Amino acid sequence: MYCKCGKKAIIFRRYSGEKLCERCFNKSMIDRVKKVIRKYSLIEKNDRVCVAVSGGKDSLVLLHILKKLSEKYPFDLIALTIDEGIEGYRDKAIETVKRNCELLGIESRVYSFKKELGYPLDEIVKKDRELSSCSYCGVFRRYLLNKKTRELGCNKLAVGHNLDDEVQTILMNFLRGDLSRFGRTGPYYIYLNERFVPRIKPLREIPEKENVVYALSNNIEVEFSTCPYSGEAYRNNIREFLNKMELEQPTTKYSLLRSYDKIYSLLAKSLAKKLKYCEKCGEPTIGNVCKTCEFLEEL
Amino acid sequence: MYCKCGKKAIIFRRYSGEKLCERCFNKSMIDRVKKVIRKYSLIEKNDRVCVAVSGGKDSLVLLHILKKLSEKYPFDLIALTIDEGIEGYRDKAIETVKRNCELLGIESRVYSFKKELGYPLDEIVKKDRELSSCSYCGVFRRYLLNKKTRELGCNKLAVGHNLDDEVQTILMNFLRGDLSRFGRTGPYYIYLNERFVPRIKPLREIPEKENVVYALSNNIEVEFSTCPYSGEAYRNNIREFLNKMELEQPTTKYSLLRSYDKIYSLLAKSLAKKLKYCEKCGEPTIGNVCKTCEFLEEL
Repeated sequence: MYCKCGKKAIIFRRYSGEKLCERCFNKSMIDRVKKVIRKYSLIEKNDRVCVAVSGGKDSLVLLHILKKLSEKYPFDLIALTIDEGIEGYRDKAIETVKRNCELLGIESRVYSFKKELGYPLDEIVKKDRELSSCSYCGVFRRYLLNKKTRELGCNKLAVGHNLDDEVQTILMNFLRGDLSRFGRTGPYYIYLNERFVPRIKPLREIPEKENVVYALSNNIEVEFSTCPYSGEAYRNNIREFLNKMELEQPTTKYSLLRSYDKIYSLLAKSLAKKLKYCEKCGEPTIGNVCKTCEFLEEL
Repeated sequence: MYCKCGKKAIIFRRYSGEKLCERCFNKSMIDRVKKVIRKYSLIEKNDRVCVAVSGGKDSLVLLHILKKLSEKYPFDLIALTIDEGIEGYRDKAIETVKRNCELLGIESRVYSFKKELGYPLDEIVKKDRELSSCSYCGVFRRYLLNKKTRELGCNKLAVGHNLDDEVQTILMNFLRGDLSRFGRTGPYYIYLNERFVPRIKPLREIPEKENVVYALSNNIEVEFSTCPYSGEAYRNNIREFLNKMELEQPTTKYSLLRSYDKIYSLLAKSLAKKLKYCEKCGEPTIGNVCKTCEFLEEL
């Protein structure tokens, strides 16, 4: 299997028929991220971008690619990591993040559930709760990511969601009839609230597998272990189905994303919500009190 | 398992928790069809409704239920059947349709591919073609259904699509990125063209299984065999997936339909297309020549 440049190919993209060598593949990855950034104006001149870095392959590939781009284009980068407090998992990943940031010369900031909110996830999990640990973790993590990005003086929050994450989420919300969530999976997500920092997704057109190949081929040190509390059976069914459909029709994931994007552009206006400020903490919220304050009260 | 009225239940609806006896189930079916008809104004006073009747369970259940409703509400019914020309399959089904129409006192009209267009499907299948037989069959059938409904002086065409058909089609078009088809799965579908008869779907909120139960419990004679040419692998994967998700989360199909309906109401305007008239036959078409004339030319 050979690349069009004549070198030995390391990857075959079924959806496009391309066979790429290491060099052409890496170039193509950077080009695609650039293209998405341009298409949706994700990053503009003099932006200060916080990258949400967990230590996994997606967020670290994002950090490495944005670093490369920041050497050519005028924008700043900070790595932002949330330490949920999961012993034996996140602590290891944080060390990985730090080593990557040192290597790249990027400032790394870490904020913990424990210090910022009072409870590490390991403790929350032990309590008797109605909701899954993922519900608490998701709410708290998004809360801190938004707040800290803003406090660090950044105007964009970049997250590492890849094509697979995105199409799974889109289909999940579609099946659940949750149209307000359905309307939040765009490439550039913004709430009409000045304390809400726009979330951007430069990797949303990169298949998960290609992030893995990029990490390996660029010797990026990543944490491959999965969260001990993760157990999203519903998402797993959706992942399995989409992978099966992609196998039969290798453009399924991109087609679904295109369907979504067309609908998104039509829905965006009608779904755009003006947020209020939480009565307790002042952070942006849909109701009167934000979910984080509500959950903390409960705990 | 007992119905709330005290009688023995014949069905358990997982999605709603209801257990229903034969009488309450039949009443609930009629009520639901009535509700859908009202909600979307599918049938209005003095409408002349053509029912597309294939002889299968869905279209015959639709015919029987509409007949019941037409005894109370002022609208007319005609049964319209297309004979595609599939020996050993459709010919048997047509006899079933005729016996049902006689029983119900409904006028039955049958039009064949062979007589109207020159080729029975059995002959088309034998030719060397690029497209599947379902592509030809679908185009020709919809063409004749629309044309004959209009020629019979009817102003609505009722089709028997059930909940399962609808959510499969919605998901299929969503995965295929086919947004213009995606915009055509509403309860009341209309093209802006006076030769296009609006298509209505009174059974779109009835799960397939319940149509079977209704047919059995009302001793409706239906044709259960499947078309010898059917082989939609893609749709089968989607069916399997949706059934699996429904098993895990018994409201999945309804949730998906709700998601779609909300999107549909937002998309309908932007997707509504003004049709032209085919240069060859005068029937409504998107391009200059309709698909039917194009296919006939080819054959």
